[in-house]
Amino acid sequence: MRSYRPEELFDENGTLVPELSTLPPTGERRMSANLSANGGMRLKDLDLPDFRSYAVDVPAPGATAAEPTRVLGTFLRDVIARNQDRFRLLGPDETTSNRLNAVFDVTDRVFSDKILATDEHIAPHGRVMEVLSEQVIEGWLEGYLLTGRHGFFNCYEAFIHIVDSMFNQHAKWLKVTRALPWRRPIASLNYLLSSHVWRQDQNGFSHQDPGFIDHVVNKKAEVIRVYLPPDANTLLSVADHCLRSRNYVNVIVAGKQMEQNWLSMDEAIVHCTRGASIWKWASNDEGNKPDVVLACCGDVPTLETLAAVDLLRRHLPDIRVRVVNVVDLMRLQPDTEHPHGLRDRDFDALFTTDKPVIFAYHGYPSLIHRLAYRRKNHPNLHVRGYREEGTTTTPFDMVMLNDLDRFHLVMDVIDRVPGLRERAGDVRQLMQDKRLECRVYTRQYGEDAPEITQWVWPNGRREGGYE
Amino acid sequence: MRSYRPEELFDENGTLVPELSTLPPTGERRMSANLSANGGMRLKDLDLPDFRSYAVDVPAPGATAAEPTRVLGTFLRDVIARNQDRFRLLGPDETTSNRLNAVFDVTDRVFSDKILATDEHIAPHGRVMEVLSEQVIEGWLEGYLLTGRHGFFNCYEAFIHIVDSMFNQHAKWLKVTRALPWRRPIASLNYLLSSHVWRQDQNGFSHQDPGFIDHVVNKKAEVIRVYLPPDANTLLSVADHCLRSRNYVNVIVAGKQMEQNWLSMDEAIVHCTRGASIWKWASNDEGNKPDVVLACCGDVPTLETLAAVDLLRRHLPDIRVRVVNVVDLMRLQPDTEHPHGLRDRDFDALFTTDKPVIFAYHGYPSLIHRLAYRRKNHPNLHVRGYREEGTTTTPFDMVMLNDLDRFHLVMDVIDRVPGLRERAGDVRQLMQDKRLECRVYTRQYGEDAPEITQWVWPNGRREGGYE
Repeated sequence: MRSYRPEELFDENGTLVPELSTLPPTGERRMSANLSANGGMRLKDLDLPDFRSYAVDVPAPGATAAEPTRVLGTFLRDVIARNQDRFRLLGPDETTSNRLNAVFDVTDRVFSDKILATDEHIAPHGRVMEVLSEQVIEGWLEGYLLTGRHGFFNCYEAFIHIVDSMFNQHAKWLKVTRALPWRRPIASLNYLLSSHVWRQDQNGFSHQDPGFIDHVVNKKAEVIRVYLPPDANTLLSVADHCLRSRNYVNVIVAGKQMEQNWLSMDEAIVHCTRGASIWKWASNDEGNKPDVVLACCGDVPTLETLAAVDLLRRHLPDIRVRVVNVVDLMRLQPDTEHPHGLRDRDFDALFTTDKPVIFAYHGYPSLIHRLAYRRKNHPNLHVRGYREEGTTTTPFDMVMLNDLDRFHLVMDVIDRVPGLRERAGDVRQLMQDKRLECRVYTRQYGEDAPEITQWVWPNGRREGGYE
Repeated sequence: MRSYRPEELFDENGTLVPELSTLPPTGERRMSANLSANGGMRLKDLDLPDFRSYAVDVPAPGATAAEPTRVLGTFLRDVIARNQDRFRLLGPDETTSNRLNAVFDVTDRVFSDKILATDEHIAPHGRVMEVLSEQVIEGWLEGYLLTGRHGFFNCYEAFIHIVDSMFNQHAKWLKVTRALPWRRPIASLNYLLSSHVWRQDQNGFSHQDPGFIDHVVNKKAEVIRVYLPPDANTLLSVADHCLRSRNYVNVIVAGKQMEQNWLSMDEAIVHCTRGASIWKWASNDEGNKPDVVLACCGDVPTLETLAAVDLLRRHLPDIRVRVVNVVDLMRLQPDTEHPHGLRDRDFDALFTTDKPVIFAYHGYPSLIHRLAYRRKNHPNLHVRGYREEGTTTTPFDMVMLNDLDRFHLVMDVIDRVPGLRERAGDVRQLMQDKRLECRVYTRQYGEDAPEITQWVWPNGRREGGYE
């Protein structure tokens, strides 16, 4: 250490000599006071269009259908148009695959090299950033947010695990900065995970992994939020909310396939505000204690749950069923664990304290147990979800492989409602036969049986299927 | 498609023309029959030295101390020496940091570029592969295993998340190949995670993340195994077991710091074979039902649990305590969920069906609930672990920040053993005071208090501390 010649740097009291101690910048020139290092100081709100004006029309549950992310794309298109200096959409080469391509009506993919005549939607000043490297995107977006701008990362669900480690560091940074009063809030890190586990039809097992949510919920509750909107209008409502938020990591899991719409925009706003609520139009327990609660979270589980309710109405009409949909996953945790957590009295009012709950969940079932194990009714909670069974197959075969299908949910009800197993043996047997029939159909025709693909919720049913 | 000129490729029946149909190789020249594509065909067992001969001497629990990974390094040294054609040790630039450097007595880091005179342990034919890119290492190792060789990946615990997505694909591959009879088993993918969450003394919060285990257990139970050996001899036993296994992913989490040895080699082998067992020498419930079970999994939680037992003996000697250590984490799952899972009767015999269990765990507490939620005694299971609180601080301050420290464990016992809260208020108050004292000490001296650093298990206690 002598080679540093400390006698030239410090005086006899060990104090730094004045020539050196006056060198560091002061005031706003200090690194921590630099606007670009404290991005919240530069942050301007997004100029957001009214998300309600992008709503799809839903005269009755199931009466219309839409591709949720395609609808979201029209909203994001106008977010981009109105915020050219402060918003970017980022992702691997999947903006179009995730059906957000309405954004290319107003912008392009940014590219700084030579642009060829055959290139489509490529420009030096595009607001969409695409590169087939999730790590690079994550790095770009973190830098963009930390310097006071806003962004939205869309990704195939399975491959977002590539940034697990980078997400960790950002979440840790957010946790620590919340305790530093001089650090101003920055825009949230928003992930849209589409092309999800249940609809990897031709891609298969390698593309099936819903575990990013599990990874995310290990981080501090105060910085993480997870949403699974079941249709187009709920997705719009959730996306608007996330774009307005600060200092969070928001994970949105949503479908891109054509699927039935359940809620009108007004209903969607109320449902998203509640985070989890009873869908009265799908329940028949009004004024009574239900015999069973069918809970669902995620677009495909919601579809299978409603189809199971339809089967129950037809085959076991005297069973009182309550349907609860969860759009804000963290509602399941106690309010002592997460700011969004339901109080026990609210949770019990939805899920009862003693009735069987068949919970159809988008991801690994264990996560629901992990979030809800302290609830009074947890012993009666039975969760279906992805149990790491998959291959290149049809959408309905995928849910059957994982016992998340409508027929299996009906069997679960029969198995768990006291007294039902004895008297509904024939219905249970029929459900098993149906599973086999549907499986055989996929092997024979390479697609799902018409009774599956053409099913619509009875309220929305009309001649010739839905629009 | 016409441009492919199908009329030249197929005859009138749509059959491939003979000139083309005879082109693909047959028999062993088919891609799937190539030895390098079915690595299990080439796999030779490792020539393993007897791991017992590397044992540290443990005359009594706590009577000696060792750095577990340094001891493991001596075993790996001889594994390398005896298997120059079929074994590699891989990792970021942490082989020495993880204290496995005994291997450099017999080999070097492989390097194919020019080697300088100042380079240490670098050679063209070294058996250690180091590069500061976890993804590259994972790729190297997967290729090495898939072509019929053996390996061992050592990594800082927090940064193994960098390969989450690659691990996913390997685990999925293993799951699928188990159902293909022509695919011969390959050597397991072995991870040693050291430099773990509890001992990042000078590195801080960014280096603290025990979540890889959570990620791993989402994959199919039949391919994943997780071990948390609490000391040097148990680590040797576990490592030997993993090196002999096939078609698994083995995750071993072990400490590198000097720590007390609890088990002799004979005891370690029995304990690891059981996977989870009662440590009679630390318990005082013999012949009785315990008042409380103190369970522990991981080296630091085991230390804190045993120190808590010592406090309980001194301050509440009439409380009957049972200590259960878990080395094979998947023992906690039911046998219906994981091949290593304990049957309920075995689980109940360890953890009782109605007594409070204070479980000190290495990682995120929710994982223990997730694994054990079906057990009868789950409502009485109270887990302490990492709750995402950390910073650059002393080892004991880290456990205090997360309520995993010995004093807090004693408070947990007082809070949960019926009747104890009322009569042990003074002890509980003393424990709170102790936490504060120890915290103040760290702020004043920058290190842990002597009563913490010099504590040894009473059986091992001798003049002047342990060897």
